[in-house]
Amino acid sequence: MIKVNVHTDHRGLENNLPLERISDTLSGDDSLLWVDVADPTPEDLRLIGAEFAFHPLAMEDALRRHQRPKIDHYDGFLFMVFYGLATDDGRPVAREIDLFVGKNYLVTVHDGTLPAVPETADRWCENVERQGNRGIGLLVYSLLDSIVDGYFPVVDDLADRIEDLEAGVFAEGGSSRDEQAAIFALKKDLLAIRRVLGPERDVMNVLVRRDAPVFGGEEVVYFQDVYDHILRVTDAIDTYRDLLSSALDAHLSMTSYHLNEVVKRLTSSSIILMSMTLIAGIYGMNFAHMPELDWRLGYVWALGLMVAVGAALVALFRRIDWL
Amino acid sequence: MIKVNVHTDHRGLENNLPLERISDTLSGDDSLLWVDVADPTPEDLRLIGAEFAFHPLAMEDALRRHQRPKIDHYDGFLFMVFYGLATDDGRPVAREIDLFVGKNYLVTVHDGTLPAVPETADRWCENVERQGNRGIGLLVYSLLDSIVDGYFPVVDDLADRIEDLEAGVFAEGGSSRDEQAAIFALKKDLLAIRRVLGPERDVMNVLVRRDAPVFGGEEVVYFQDVYDHILRVTDAIDTYRDLLSSALDAHLSMTSYHLNEVVKRLTSSSIILMSMTLIAGIYGMNFAHMPELDWRLGYVWALGLMVAVGAALVALFRRIDWL
Amino acid sequence: MIKVNVHTDHRGLENNLPLERISDTLSGDDSLLWVDVADPTPEDLRLIGAEFAFHPLAMEDALRRHQRPKIDHYDGFLFMVFYGLATDDGRPVAREIDLFVGKNYLVTVHDGTLPAVPETADRWCENVERQGNRGIGLLVYSLLDSIVDGYFPVVDDLADRIEDLEAGVFAEGGSSRDEQAAIFALKKDLLAIRRVLGPERDVMNVLVRRDAPVFGGEEVVYFQDVYDHILRVTDAIDTYRDLLSSALDAHLSMTSYHLNEVVKRLTSSSIILMSMTLIAGIYGMNFAHMPELDWRLGYVWALGLMVAVGAALVALFRRIDWL
Amino acid sequence: MIKVNVHTDHRGLENNLPLERISDTLSGDDSLLWVDVADPTPEDLRLIGAEFAFHPLAMEDALRRHQRPKIDHYDGFLFMVFYGLATDDGRPVAREIDLFVGKNYLVTVHDGTLPAVPETADRWCENVERQGNRGIGLLVYSLLDSIVDGYFPVVDDLADRIEDLEAGVFAEGGSSRDEQAAIFALKKDLLAIRRVLGPERDVMNVLVRRDAPVFGGEEVVYFQDVYDHILRVTDAIDTYRDLLSSALDAHLSMTSYHLNEVVKRLTSSSIILMSMTLIAGIYGMNFAHMPELDWRLGYVWALGLMVAVGAALVALFRRIDWL
Amino acid sequence: MIKVNVHTDHRGLENNLPLERISDTLSGDDSLLWVDVADPTPEDLRLIGAEFAFHPLAMEDALRRHQRPKIDHYDGFLFMVFYGLATDDGRPVAREIDLFVGKNYLVTVHDGTLPAVPETADRWCENVERQGNRGIGLLVYSLLDSIVDGYFPVVDDLADRIEDLEAGVFAEGGSSRDEQAAIFALKKDLLAIRRVLGPERDVMNVLVRRDAPVFGGEEVVYFQDVYDHILRVTDAIDTYRDLLSSALDAHLSMTSYHLNEVVKRLTSSSIILMSMTLIAGIYGMNFAHMPELDWRLGYVWALGLMVAVGAALVALFRRIDWL
Repeated sequence: MIKVNVHTDHRGLENNLPLERISDTLSGDDSLLWVDVADPTPEDLRLIGAEFAFHPLAMEDALRRHQRPKIDHYDGFLFMVFYGLATDDGRPVAREIDLFVGKNYLVTVHDGTLPAVPETADRWCENVERQGNRGIGLLVYSLLDSIVDGYFPVVDDLADRIEDLEAGVFAEGGSSRDEQAAIFALKKDLLAIRRVLGPERDVMNVLVRRDAPVFGGEEVVYFQDVYDHILRVTDAIDTYRDLLSSALDAHLSMTSYHLNEVVKRLTSSSIILMSMTLIAGIYGMNFAHMPELDWRLGYVWALGLMVAVGAALVALFRRIDWL
Repeated sequence: MIKVNVHTDHRGLENNLPLERISDTLSGDDSLLWVDVADPTPEDLRLIGAEFAFHPLAMEDALRRHQRPKIDHYDGFLFMVFYGLATDDGRPVAREIDLFVGKNYLVTVHDGTLPAVPETADRWCENVERQGNRGIGLLVYSLLDSIVDGYFPVVDDLADRIEDLEAGVFAEGGSSRDEQAAIFALKKDLLAIRRVLGPERDVMNVLVRRDAPVFGGEEVVYFQDVYDHILRVTDAIDTYRDLLSSALDAHLSMTSYHLNEVVKRLTSSSIILMSMTLIAGIYGMNFAHMPELDWRLGYVWALGLMVAVGAALVALFRRIDWL
Repeated sequence: MIKVNVHTDHRGLENNLPLERISDTLSGDDSLLWVDVADPTPEDLRLIGAEFAFHPLAMEDALRRHQRPKIDHYDGFLFMVFYGLATDDGRPVAREIDLFVGKNYLVTVHDGTLPAVPETADRWCENVERQGNRGIGLLVYSLLDSIVDGYFPVVDDLADRIEDLEAGVFAEGGSSRDEQAAIFALKKDLLAIRRVLGPERDVMNVLVRRDAPVFGGEEVVYFQDVYDHILRVTDAIDTYRDLLSSALDAHLSMTSYHLNEVVKRLTSSSIILMSMTLIAGIYGMNFAHMPELDWRLGYVWALGLMVAVGAALVALFRRIDWL
Repeated sequence: MIKVNVHTDHRGLENNLPLERISDTLSGDDSLLWVDVADPTPEDLRLIGAEFAFHPLAMEDALRRHQRPKIDHYDGFLFMVFYGLATDDGRPVAREIDLFVGKNYLVTVHDGTLPAVPETADRWCENVERQGNRGIGLLVYSLLDSIVDGYFPVVDDLADRIEDLEAGVFAEGGSSRDEQAAIFALKKDLLAIRRVLGPERDVMNVLVRRDAPVFGGEEVVYFQDVYDHILRVTDAIDTYRDLLSSALDAHLSMTSYHLNEVVKRLTSSSIILMSMTLIAGIYGMNFAHMPELDWRLGYVWALGLMVAVGAALVALFRRIDWL
Repeated sequence: MIKVNVHTDHRGLENNLPLERISDTLSGDDSLLWVDVADPTPEDLRLIGAEFAFHPLAMEDALRRHQRPKIDHYDGFLFMVFYGLATDDGRPVAREIDLFVGKNYLVTVHDGTLPAVPETADRWCENVERQGNRGIGLLVYSLLDSIVDGYFPVVDDLADRIEDLEAGVFAEGGSSRDEQAAIFALKKDLLAIRRVLGPERDVMNVLVRRDAPVFGGEEVVYFQDVYDHILRVTDAIDTYRDLLSSALDAHLSMTSYHLNEVVKRLTSSSIILMSMTLIAGIYGMNFAHMPELDWRLGYVWALGLMVAVGAALVALFRRIDWL
């Protein structure tokens, strides 16, 4: 589905322009055009590519998807790959969005819905009507800003999961298979996010450092802002990774601690039982002359002896904390 | 709460100036202004922002907080984010302070009380009265210096906790859940501090390397001093991390060592008991012809045999260090 | 086996040219020559080297093989070492290809068949007939692109193996020797691929950054594309390494978890048996006065007692999750 | 204690000059002055600072101590912090020395005795009498060189301790608490030395790279020498860290290996005892019809059976290496 | 032992020139001199140093040895430290060689025999007679090339040892002390080699990057070749380190796997024995009324019961893979 929004100084904002009228508009110096292509068919992309005269390599990247976040400088336009993060069924998923950025146009290509796109579109339309066209740089900024702002709830979600995990490790005890699986899943999610964030930081670095030909120098401060937010998310992810590995260490240590406890308790118990069995064994011997056997209270004596030995051992093991 | 201190060469120091008179003062070339905003309401910030004509992005950062330490170059002013460290309930907490630094003013924004702020204010007021206005650079320096000096007691506190832990690992023995939790908590605290220190080092690097337009070249040596202190704290934190991971290794190793000891002791004991039980079992057999059974001292012989075997095994296990 | 393809503007494409005619063609400014040498004999290489006047160091590298991916700048030509990846018997293997790149010729040397070579050759022949000679840069690009595209199925294969492993770790349980061996084999394969990819990234970096004398500036965007693909594969490999080490951690943790389970179950069982044996032992004592022995239902009582104690312990151990 | 040595071309070397005459001497172009301040009182430092007009920040650093190794460029002098290493009670300790380096003077401040200081002083006095004043650069070099040469015996000491540890891990066996504590202590010592060496390398880098205004270009080769020695020590420390972590791995592995051995041996033994007890139990049953019980040699048969079963199990366990 | 080889354009090659004639030769512009000093006495070095007027710092390094690989730029000559690798008693050893490289001379200093030295000397003498003097750069190159070529057999040897280790870990089973010691020894050897290779790479980097004054620009391609070989060895060593740590992980994992197996088997066995003992215990009770005791086939019944219970447990444990 292709959606075209155009703003020209003399005609103001026009939404849902037909595709054919794009080339007229592009030539106008005072216009700013945003074409959003959701779930594109190859035919859609071919049309767009022809209209804007995009380089075949950029078209191929937009068609195939699953690119790394990057910024490629082509003659007359920039091609950027970025990812939005969303939480799906409790786990973060990354959704690709490709940006073609020209002097007076922005073309975005993505699968499915990316909340940042309609949000930015609404805000932009509103602003452009109120304040007029403030340039392609600010449009790209507000889109990226909106995408990156969407990272924070996902990251907070991860923080909550780590906290739950932490509580679980120290609270109850015992090494459950679920806990281990949760750690593994978290690690995988962190890796997936890190894989997107690292290259995005590099992309923003390019926008902040070099004076890219398409954006004015005064817009650097805006991209710096997005860059700072990405750094913040990256920092958080790195901290979570470290925390997670600490949690794993703690988990392993607690597992071995519990094993110790169980072994100590069970083996102590078996020694107590063995001692009592030894007494029973002794009085089960068939010697002709065993004075206790003929005692009136021999049986009680034997049972008492067992209880006494058992109790003494229980006390001993309790004292040295083995039971 | 907003507190305004102004120093002008002709009128000297004036404390608690009303906000409205700021703009007059700002235009004067000989004045130096410090506005401290504690626990700001959005309205407070709006007022300040309007008075000083701050960029909306910087205002947003100051309003939202939880930024990464950073330094942003805006037209006419610098925006810096720094963190003070305090110890709360035995654990370090980081408190954000935002600085707007202009040619002749400093605006600080923070939540709650940051001891470094009143300290610096007092010292500055005193100095400014005695020596006159020595420039915005030195004011910013003394504030940062005071903040960073506040890191050392926090770090010493961590050093003490690590030392306690170390003592605990080797002293008593046994793997307590508390020790493990203490290691984890320490690791978390170190991570939290590291997360603040890393970017602060980058910020100071900017102040030391580039001749920032707001500060004169002769002030670099002062910022170098703050930078050195941050490096010192960073070094300490890194060393503590390494020590902590060594302590964790030692802890795990001691746990497995104690498990070994327990297993050796208990299993040795059970073998001794089993041997004695075997003897009792033998003399409990019902064979018609068992000469010992009819001995006068058969029973004593059997008990003696048990004791002898038990003692021999105890001696053996002692010698090979299993008991 | 040596295969020579030449394209000249006036004569068009000629395949399987005899070697001797190479030098004539090379002098022509409008020609583009591709010589592919598969499984070269030393004699083949000597011939080629003489014909093109290659530097002896480059010839030695091509002869010996097992070089690191690299790009060497010689007078008049570039020498590049690259690796293709293929899956052989479920494990990835790297196949070396050496490229001599001159102003108007490409010489490729490799052992065995590398699918990328005939693929590129076919496509090139087709293109060159349709669109004419588009320069050595694009020919090198299409060869490298084809090689790097061949990495993706190999990497996907690794991803599948890791997923299988993951499923195995959490699904069944128990620590099989096979699982451990699979982890080790995967790690080895990842290392082998990483060893090729790292230097290849450096090679591409050279082609992208510096304006190499042989390729025009407008071809940088193509090499950038190959570079991005290599980065993508490198990212994937790094992620797999991290995942693998997580899987190893999970595996070790599950192993120790299963040990715990087994130890708890078996030791609990032995305690139950010991308790019952103790009762049997007690009623096996030979005291003259043991009232139960003369009860009519003494035997049933004893058996009942054993069952009761056993059942109570089973219930207890079940409740504390030890059985 | 303050010691002043001066060399002037016309008066030669004068030792133990009174402090008051320093300023006269400083103005002379042909003089070279070394003031060594051991265990300074704040008053001492105030005097020195006033005499040489040092920057207050440098004075503060010299007063407080516990700085990181660093080099600060002040107007007219350099301030350097370096550390000497000594072995105290078998463990390395770092002793700070602060250097103020001017055009024709060196002021050194340190606590206690640093062997490098009197050594360098003696050598310098001797050289200066023989060869005349060869400049401040060579004086600083010989002091640093002497300090760094003092690192090697300390590092050799560490090497010996690691070798002892290694021998211990594989030789005897068993996991002693002492070994673990020794590993931990070594790790701590390595960290402490590393913490000093890292920044010192950076300091030397400054002296080697930039043509510092106080030292001539021909002295760079001397500082390069000191730099190389520091690199050598750093390399050694890094290698020891890796070796230590290998030793720790080996230690843990040997511990678990010994646990295996003990468990196998003890459990095998208990199975043998249980088998023999079972036989005794069988012949202790009270069946009316048990032919063996009435055999003449029944008792011997039973004992023989026990011995046979025991011996068979011993042989079996020996063969599968469990005993 | 000092060996002097000189080549002059007009007199050709002269071997074993007396030391005294060196200075004459050095002044000649067309001469190339190689002085090889094996196992030098301090007197030898003093002579050489005086003859060539070497800087005292370089002389000291050559005298003391055990330097880090490095390249020092002195006035009029370069001083290089390199290491040859040899295999001694199955373990790699590094042998130092120091190079003084002037405009028309090379002085090499080393202990014992380094196979690369006579090899290069022979080849050089041969070449110089055939092709005349081709400059000091190519002489240094062929020496370094020969040294670095000597690394490959040493590295292959390590590869073999790692492969043996790998086979050992998965093949047999059980955690032998030897295996652990072999891993540790390998790690130590890798560290020792890495410690030499890292700085050598930096040295080569200097020769490749900067146009050192002594070597012409056209020789860079030769040093690049040596550089590539060092990179290849470094890559291999890094890969081996990773493989080794994987092997260690596998080793530890297999150890704990075997412990699991042993524990499961032994404890299962003990439970079977206990069950049988319980039955024996039951029929050893002394109740007046126990019907089975009077059965004709009571004894057989009891033995049968034991066998049945034992067999049932064996079957059960086999099914859940515990035996």
